[in-house]
Amino acid sequence: MINYDGFFSTAGRSMRESAIRQMGKVLAQTTDIISFAPGYPAEDSFPWSAFAAIARDVLEAADGSVLQYGPTRGYRPLREALVGLMRDRGITANADDVVVTTGSQQGLDLIARVLLDPGDVVLVELPTYTGAISAFRAVGASLVGIRQQDDGIDLDHLETTLRDLRESGQRVKCLYLVPNFQNPTGRLLSLDKRRAVLEWAERRDVLIIEDDPYRDLFFPDVTTEAETRPIAADDAEGWVVYLSSFSKTLAPGFRVGWIHAPSGIAAKIELAKQAEDLCSGGLDQRIVFEACRRGLLAQHVPALRTQYQAKRDVMRRALVRETKGQIRWIDPRGGFFLWAQLAPPLDSRAVLAQARAHGVIFVVGHAFFVDGSGDAYLRLSFSAPSPDRIDEGVKRLARAIDAAAAG
Amino acid sequence: MINYDGFFSTAGRSMRESAIRQMGKVLAQTTDIISFAPGYPAEDSFPWSAFAAIARDVLEAADGSVLQYGPTRGYRPLREALVGLMRDRGITANADDVVVTTGSQQGLDLIARVLLDPGDVVLVELPTYTGAISAFRAVGASLVGIRQQDDGIDLDHLETTLRDLRESGQRVKCLYLVPNFQNPTGRLLSLDKRRAVLEWAERRDVLIIEDDPYRDLFFPDVTTEAETRPIAADDAEGWVVYLSSFSKTLAPGFRVGWIHAPSGIAAKIELAKQAEDLCSGGLDQRIVFEACRRGLLAQHVPALRTQYQAKRDVMRRALVRETKGQIRWIDPRGGFFLWAQLAPPLDSRAVLAQARAHGVIFVVGHAFFVDGSGDAYLRLSFSAPSPDRIDEGVKRLARAIDAAAAG
Repeated sequence: MINYDGFFSTAGRSMRESAIRQMGKVLAQTTDIISFAPGYPAEDSFPWSAFAAIARDVLEAADGSVLQYGPTRGYRPLREALVGLMRDRGITANADDVVVTTGSQQGLDLIARVLLDPGDVVLVELPTYTGAISAFRAVGASLVGIRQQDDGIDLDHLETTLRDLRESGQRVKCLYLVPNFQNPTGRLLSLDKRRAVLEWAERRDVLIIEDDPYRDLFFPDVTTEAETRPIAADDAEGWVVYLSSFSKTLAPGFRVGWIHAPSGIAAKIELAKQAEDLCSGGLDQRIVFEACRRGLLAQHVPALRTQYQAKRDVMRRALVRETKGQIRWIDPRGGFFLWAQLAPPLDSRAVLAQARAHGVIFVVGHAFFVDGSGDAYLRLSFSAPSPDRIDEGVKRLARAIDAAAAG
Repeated sequence: MINYDGFFSTAGRSMRESAIRQMGKVLAQTTDIISFAPGYPAEDSFPWSAFAAIARDVLEAADGSVLQYGPTRGYRPLREALVGLMRDRGITANADDVVVTTGSQQGLDLIARVLLDPGDVVLVELPTYTGAISAFRAVGASLVGIRQQDDGIDLDHLETTLRDLRESGQRVKCLYLVPNFQNPTGRLLSLDKRRAVLEWAERRDVLIIEDDPYRDLFFPDVTTEAETRPIAADDAEGWVVYLSSFSKTLAPGFRVGWIHAPSGIAAKIELAKQAEDLCSGGLDQRIVFEACRRGLLAQHVPALRTQYQAKRDVMRRALVRETKGQIRWIDPRGGFFLWAQLAPPLDSRAVLAQARAHGVIFVVGHAFFVDGSGDAYLRLSFSAPSPDRIDEGVKRLARAIDAAAAG
């Protein structure tokens, strides 16, 4: 047996499996388990027959470029459609500055590679998205957490943290934010804070990486579309690198996301993508483009809002009914996640061990905190399971919490 | 205007556009240009109606997992099909050690990230594939070139180069090879040298990265299938990381390639892929799997061999007829490329300037040499243009060479 340890890079040696993907493996191995773990969209929401019709039209046209190597920045008509889609969000974009990515995860990875050297600091929210943590850590960046308040990131903590880091000689390059229905907390960053954080970035010479996969999935009963206005919409100078995706609105299997960045950064991202995968899938890009062009996306998204809002209601009702003060949570105003906190001294890892035995899984809060904290929290995704399964899953979770409390 | 220079990483600052992709942009901007530049498969060879039928069946079945996030290592039945496909090539593989990648380019990138730190040495052939150069340089690796002979890499030069590098204290981790119809030379590594290079790797503690996208496209008039036996087929101990792809046999637009690696390395590659794009396209993987399962691939490949062999004949005949001793070349025994050398003092960059004016493009040899040499060479891809266009393109090229010689 060869020992490969000496062959691995520093990055290779330090790679660890994400807690979310671990839960995916638990799911694949087990029967009758209800998963609140990964942020998967509801499969029964995929518009199958519309996709089948589009795929048929695209392939029957036998346009060679569909299945040939394509431009690294992506299929031009799709990039133009993305400009229109961003315009609807308030962002003035240029198709030349759009790069189609193999999902938003690749977008995060490309940004990390283009901007970050080992030791460079990225400021992230406490808690934040695990995929961003993985992408930034893969290039050796140092992640420093900023606390959140009900209306999003704590601006005072942001400022004092930056000052302390700079005083200690560290290079702070970026602030990573998920302003809309944050993963994992489901929080919405207030409009006032969006303006303030952009003004802060300009003043402090820090780029903002704005990750916006959930924007379309606001819940109309408690959130207006105006409240989801991206930070990038007010960025006249070029401080914001904006990412979004079709994974939550059409389907993740197409692996189509995008980046809109200032021209100089977009050019570097293109070069990084060229070395990373040459181009994203051609058929996937055409299907997504046709879904935009034919109005499928525009017609589909309001139905998704209603569907996910109803699932949130089911989870919330079940939590109110089943749990007895051992848990409190933030009411989601959009997106896929309900962020819950256990009453002391309960620990989410102990609860997860019980939960697996009771046939339900979630992601432990710890996975989302770059400072090693978060043991009191759990992320519950209500997006994928059916309403009945959500209800049953919360029952099992409540029993698991009881068991953990008793244990 | 913000100056972003201070925000870029070391890798970001050093990224350069590949010569091949630059030619792609020339092509997009110009009318009536014949391209011998990128290694594109022939679009008229894509089995459109078979793909359309498969896509319809896959989407009409409405199996949620097709469009959901999938396992990072890839769709399990596809990985099992890949084991069978590798078995036909002589390789004993295990589905657990296979990682489906977003094209072979991602395979190279993932291997680079998992294995290479800045300054680590990768030995490559002189000349070698530009995409590998990009992927290895993106992680800061140092590339050192090994000369080739008619039957492939020069083993004496390989040994003396390794010795010199080690004596000077450098860490030589890998040897990158394209044994079958090498990009750009079209050369076939002899079976004797394949055995010798594997034995050398074991003795010298160097991993072999074997990149094998062209293996299926041997030309039956001058090459037997037995001569394409991968190095990995004789690797009992685990010194070879093997990559291949469906881009040349089905279509590049699906972005489906794969890596077969020793278990310990495959596990790290999976983690790197998780951070890089989570998973490859779901629909693409299903279509490729069905193309394997239904026998489409097996039926299609012999026709491709005949087609590309005939195109090679057209290019060769035209070169014999049109050029008058200003150029010599290696007769391709498979693959997409004819590697040509200009008679002194002609320089391929001067010829390219003339060629663009005459309506034909290729890739300058320089792009494939990590030691800064190669100005006398050009790579001519005969895979994509029609036979008539190949013939006309060579006429234009001959006139361009005349003009460069006169200039």
